[in-house]
Amino acid sequence: MSDYLFIDACFQKNVPRVPVWMMRQAGRYLPQYQAVRSKVTFLELCKTPSLACEVTVQPIDEFGMDAAILFCDILIPVEAMGLSLDFTDKGPVFANPIRSRGDINKLSIPDPHETMPFVMDAIGLVRKQINVPLICFSGAPFTLASYAIEGSGSKNYVHLKSMLFSDPKSAHILLGKLAETCTEYLKAQVASGAQAVQLFDSWAGILSPHDFKEFALRYAKQIIESLKASKEFSENPVPIIYFVNGCAPYLEMLKDCGADVLGCDWRVDLAHVRHIIGDRMAIQGNMDPTALLGTQDYVRHEVKHVVESAGEHSGYIFNLGHGVLPMTNPEHVRVMVEAVHQLTAQ
Amino acid sequence: MSDYLFIDACFQKNVPRVPVWMMRQAGRYLPQYQAVRSKVTFLELCKTPSLACEVTVQPIDEFGMDAAILFCDILIPVEAMGLSLDFTDKGPVFANPIRSRGDINKLSIPDPHETMPFVMDAIGLVRKQINVPLICFSGAPFTLASYAIEGSGSKNYVHLKSMLFSDPKSAHILLGKLAETCTEYLKAQVASGAQAVQLFDSWAGILSPHDFKEFALRYAKQIIESLKASKEFSENPVPIIYFVNGCAPYLEMLKDCGADVLGCDWRVDLAHVRHIIGDRMAIQGNMDPTALLGTQDYVRHEVKHVVESAGEHSGYIFNLGHGVLPMTNPEHVRVMVEAVHQLTAQ
Repeated sequence: MSDYLFIDACFQKNVPRVPVWMMRQAGRYLPQYQAVRSKVTFLELCKTPSLACEVTVQPIDEFGMDAAILFCDILIPVEAMGLSLDFTDKGPVFANPIRSRGDINKLSIPDPHETMPFVMDAIGLVRKQINVPLICFSGAPFTLASYAIEGSGSKNYVHLKSMLFSDPKSAHILLGKLAETCTEYLKAQVASGAQAVQLFDSWAGILSPHDFKEFALRYAKQIIESLKASKEFSENPVPIIYFVNGCAPYLEMLKDCGADVLGCDWRVDLAHVRHIIGDRMAIQGNMDPTALLGTQDYVRHEVKHVVESAGEHSGYIFNLGHGVLPMTNPEHVRVMVEAVHQLTAQ
Repeated sequence: MSDYLFIDACFQKNVPRVPVWMMRQAGRYLPQYQAVRSKVTFLELCKTPSLACEVTVQPIDEFGMDAAILFCDILIPVEAMGLSLDFTDKGPVFANPIRSRGDINKLSIPDPHETMPFVMDAIGLVRKQINVPLICFSGAPFTLASYAIEGSGSKNYVHLKSMLFSDPKSAHILLGKLAETCTEYLKAQVASGAQAVQLFDSWAGILSPHDFKEFALRYAKQIIESLKASKEFSENPVPIIYFVNGCAPYLEMLKDCGADVLGCDWRVDLAHVRHIIGDRMAIQGNMDPTALLGTQDYVRHEVKHVVESAGEHSGYIFNLGHGVLPMTNPEHVRVMVEAVHQLTAQ
């Protein structure tokens, strides 16, 4: 047993109550975040360790979350590989998206300590300020490739799918480079003090099951295997969470992904997830983030629904099924956290 | 047995080969469609029977599809209820979206023959010109409500979800009115000569399973039951297809939807669908529309994959898992249709 509810739940050990945290909990819905963010750009916030630390800690102080997640962006390692990243009103944009083998060849496998020292520094600062575990993360290779190829958010993923289906060899080279980058990045995070890591496959749900296996799962598994075999993880056996947005069609395959925890979006019933994956992994999720836009009574009702569908198993962490939305009332987050505590305390 | 492969497959009768058609087959990827469309607006095209007929027939002549689908838009019945509909570069827009009970109260249940005579007229014209069955359609209530409340395409469906979760009573009143409108509309289509009807639940996949049951499936079932009990369907027992985009999480519930055919998006394995739904329905789908952006060899390979996953069951109709994309090469559509014919002829 660790000193932490969250870590114990990740490893399916008995816990006195269900731990809770929230994707994007350090974010725009919090006025104290807005106050910090108003003075700098989004990327400056990511790259200034003292500020990244400040906003990371805010939801812990405010709501008593059972884990912190480092304020950063899933695309930071892609920028470190050589793409020019910017954040606009419409989300992240790469000025020079990947469209050819030549573009892929130009990408480097960066040394994370050299290219992303601000992440490692922020980890050190946060660790001194909080007494709950710190989760760090990366986008998973398929999701990073999606952004890198499309260049921005997309509706039909035409550039991405065109490459997958007309030049799969190039796609695999890109995904391989991304997997290597992610592996080194997550190892460096753990060496710097990360107490859990999460791989975000936010765009996985746009693939047919056989394409998910070939283009997404394969590379997530490769990272997880490399991490588990690494010196960094042998010295600090921190849990690995694989979040798959739109996971429902892929559950059978995900049984063997090797992660300690499966992060689930809201479009799946957790009882069904447990039925499929059995004891192989802990489960994290999965309240619809928009449920927080309902009444406070509705929030309590939905928390109860999600907790009940997760069942009696100790390997369970309450979370949203996706990031909390900017227009969310922080008081509804408080109601959610309290409801989890109240409903699951033994 | 009817004279039509498509109809027989819908009713799970033996067929000599798998029938094939394509969602949005009358659409922007076809130069001959563009030629017609360049002279009128999208809505004018919907509302001019001779032109709607012309573009409906084009893919039948061009590729030998086994069914035609009337050129129209899923939102037409919402316009008939009193919302002002326009089509912009970014898709459909309602100038006066539904945001309150007052807005809902203002909506009428239109007489389809009076408010959408152009649909009925186009059906009559198409029936005279083709010798394959004519499919007509409507958006399903949840999908129509989504557009009506959001007012346009949306990323997080904040207005919609806010109403579902903070004022479900109003949402149910709206969904009930939409279900009644759809029912009358589809009955009128059949009375006018439609030989199959499809309900499009294009936005269903944004809901948690319990919300899908409450806000989407419930109203689709209500329509299907009313249709099956109606005079129009007793006189012309045409098949009913329920297309659910993002169907994977809901398959168990969909077993009892009452439709003759379940239309599936590409993010699910058809062998799995058949395993869950058994003999209760025929299956339609589900090649990833972006597979047509790959090479011709890749298209053949994907057709084979989809046909094999559908298995030996005669209740199967080949289709894409969503509408064909505008940038699709028509020659790849021809390759797809030929591959289905070749692979499934007995």
